[in-house]
Amino acid sequence: MNAIAVYEGADEPVVTEKPRPDPVPGEALVRTLRVGVDGTDHEVLAGGHGGVPEGEDHLVLGHEAVGVVEDPNDTPFSVGDIVVPTVRRPPNGANEYFARGEPDMAPEGQYHERGIVGAHGFMAEYFTSPAEFLVEIPPELAEWGFLVEPVSIAEKAIEHAYASRSAFHWDPESALVLGNGSLGLLTVATLDESFDRIYCLGRRERPDPTIDIIESLGATYVNSNETPVSSVSETHEPMDLVFEATGHAPHAFETVEALAPNGVGALLGVPADWSFEIDGGRLHREFVLHNKALVGSVNSGYEHFEAAVDSLRRFSDRFVDDLVTGVYGLDEFEAAFADDDTTIKTAVEFDVYEER
Amino acid sequence: MNAIAVYEGADEPVVTEKPRPDPVPGEALVRTLRVGVDGTDHEVLAGGHGGVPEGEDHLVLGHEAVGVVEDPNDTPFSVGDIVVPTVRRPPNGANEYFARGEPDMAPEGQYHERGIVGAHGFMAEYFTSPAEFLVEIPPELAEWGFLVEPVSIAEKAIEHAYASRSAFHWDPESALVLGNGSLGLLTVATLDESFDRIYCLGRRERPDPTIDIIESLGATYVNSNETPVSSVSETHEPMDLVFEATGHAPHAFETVEALAPNGVGALLGVPADWSFEIDGGRLHREFVLHNKALVGSVNSGYEHFEAAVDSLRRFSDRFVDDLVTGVYGLDEFEAAFADDDTTIKTAVEFDVYEER
Repeated sequence: MNAIAVYEGADEPVVTEKPRPDPVPGEALVRTLRVGVDGTDHEVLAGGHGGVPEGEDHLVLGHEAVGVVEDPNDTPFSVGDIVVPTVRRPPNGANEYFARGEPDMAPEGQYHERGIVGAHGFMAEYFTSPAEFLVEIPPELAEWGFLVEPVSIAEKAIEHAYASRSAFHWDPESALVLGNGSLGLLTVATLDESFDRIYCLGRRERPDPTIDIIESLGATYVNSNETPVSSVSETHEPMDLVFEATGHAPHAFETVEALAPNGVGALLGVPADWSFEIDGGRLHREFVLHNKALVGSVNSGYEHFEAAVDSLRRFSDRFVDDLVTGVYGLDEFEAAFADDDTTIKTAVEFDVYEER
Repeated sequence: MNAIAVYEGADEPVVTEKPRPDPVPGEALVRTLRVGVDGTDHEVLAGGHGGVPEGEDHLVLGHEAVGVVEDPNDTPFSVGDIVVPTVRRPPNGANEYFARGEPDMAPEGQYHERGIVGAHGFMAEYFTSPAEFLVEIPPELAEWGFLVEPVSIAEKAIEHAYASRSAFHWDPESALVLGNGSLGLLTVATLDESFDRIYCLGRRERPDPTIDIIESLGATYVNSNETPVSSVSETHEPMDLVFEATGHAPHAFETVEALAPNGVGALLGVPADWSFEIDGGRLHREFVLHNKALVGSVNSGYEHFEAAVDSLRRFSDRFVDDLVTGVYGLDEFEAAFADDDTTIKTAVEFDVYEER
């Protein structure tokens, strides 16, 4: 079968031939429909993140997949079920985090991530997975099922942010999403029902398709060239929730200034080392006198995938159509890895879903 | 009656004569037993924090009080009940934070703090308080009841820290308290039952009475001159909980490095502005890849006072005796405001509790 992989030492994906995998007991065989591309894939290609499976010279890419069960192989699934795989797998048998269904809380070294580190991804015509790591989704979402994984990342961070505010009555009204990439836009859509006023910050100038999407969702675009994060509170309003999806390290700290009293910032970016000056005294005091919080969040668990399916069901067709700027077959898969201002969210299509 | 106050423009407390207050409907009259002194009192004296009530030229000090109900005045209390007052009061009638019993979550401007900002404190022979802001404590704790308020500050921060970890299974074992002042030591004692291993960091050299207390509680002293916060993780172990009670702003950020994966830092210090350099990229990444959190916490609510009473009941007599280095009558009240290396926790005594 065909797969899209990156070889050690290379920084570009290639189509490669691999044997079709055989499911072992407990695993189902899945025929891949579509696999999304995101910033993590670009980081893996750039070599700044991830790693090939032990003993191999390449990594099959892709961690945002949707597929059809081809062979349930005595798992609870049926032929034709539409499934989305979770990403983390136990590296050497299960550990406590996997045992309690919270692989997203496992520390480094206690997980592989399919398509990212230590295990092949889903960019292949077929993949196998233990049934416990497959989330069934309704057939009507098959086409956009590759968005379940990125939305699940937002769901987890939002869940942890709310948890951090659960010791008191918290009734948030305003949210600021930092970053107008695909994760930022998906988060704006995910937060839509829970917040009265949503802002999304980016550094693009008009006209720009991401700004159009932000406004079509009823949210307000904040141009960071005019209004830096530290001024949002004054220019617009203090934010009950800030969701950082940029990986721009100063934003993590400016977030404290953008928050309303009792607010929380969820951090999701993964920046490289970068030293800079902050007014640490002021930020520390702001944390304390206004009961503010910051929570870091990585990856997502089974329940976040389920929450993401519910969110995806609520998204308008228009939003998803605008967001997904390209779905490409194997013959033009390179286009899915483009990273320019007209590209928002892309996927590689391995097979077309046909409802029975 | 006698009261201890600071006059505008002065930086030292004096004994002053005030009329004995009359309780209005809903208030009880309380005869003061003891009132503790802490860092906030020193900040109020230094003028860096707080403010006199509107239209007055002085502020009666004291926010850590215990007293005896002298006149219940048709409140649910009885003559002789031992009570501890909470600190925040609504500035102009109630607001939503007071209405739902969470004055500790009110933003600036929506509260007065008795003895700190906008309202007289409890360092007087008598004080009045609405019954809803008086917490009854068992008579056997009367002597040490002035410790309830500072312990309640720790209880709130700990509650918020745990809440921030409530979205997943969190079974913390190691805790690091930053600061060996009275709040730090009270926190070590409060955490004692919940953590297997507790560390307390300070900058004192042996011999030192606070180090003796830390070790008598079974905790490990960490000398910050030898082991800075950022090295604690390597020298000792990564910490599931860090409790910052120093007000030293770099500690707020070094805390992220001291935390174990999935750990949380509670911040309680209130530093002045102070700019310095951090490796913000590394800290941001640490937050995210290891699901870490920081929560700021200020003041405390009624339920935290109740939790503090339970903690105080568990404290050993030896610990409390070692911690309280001086209880001084009005004739030598200045000694209660001493701030040297032999002083840990002090109180001013207005009346001696005699059990009936």
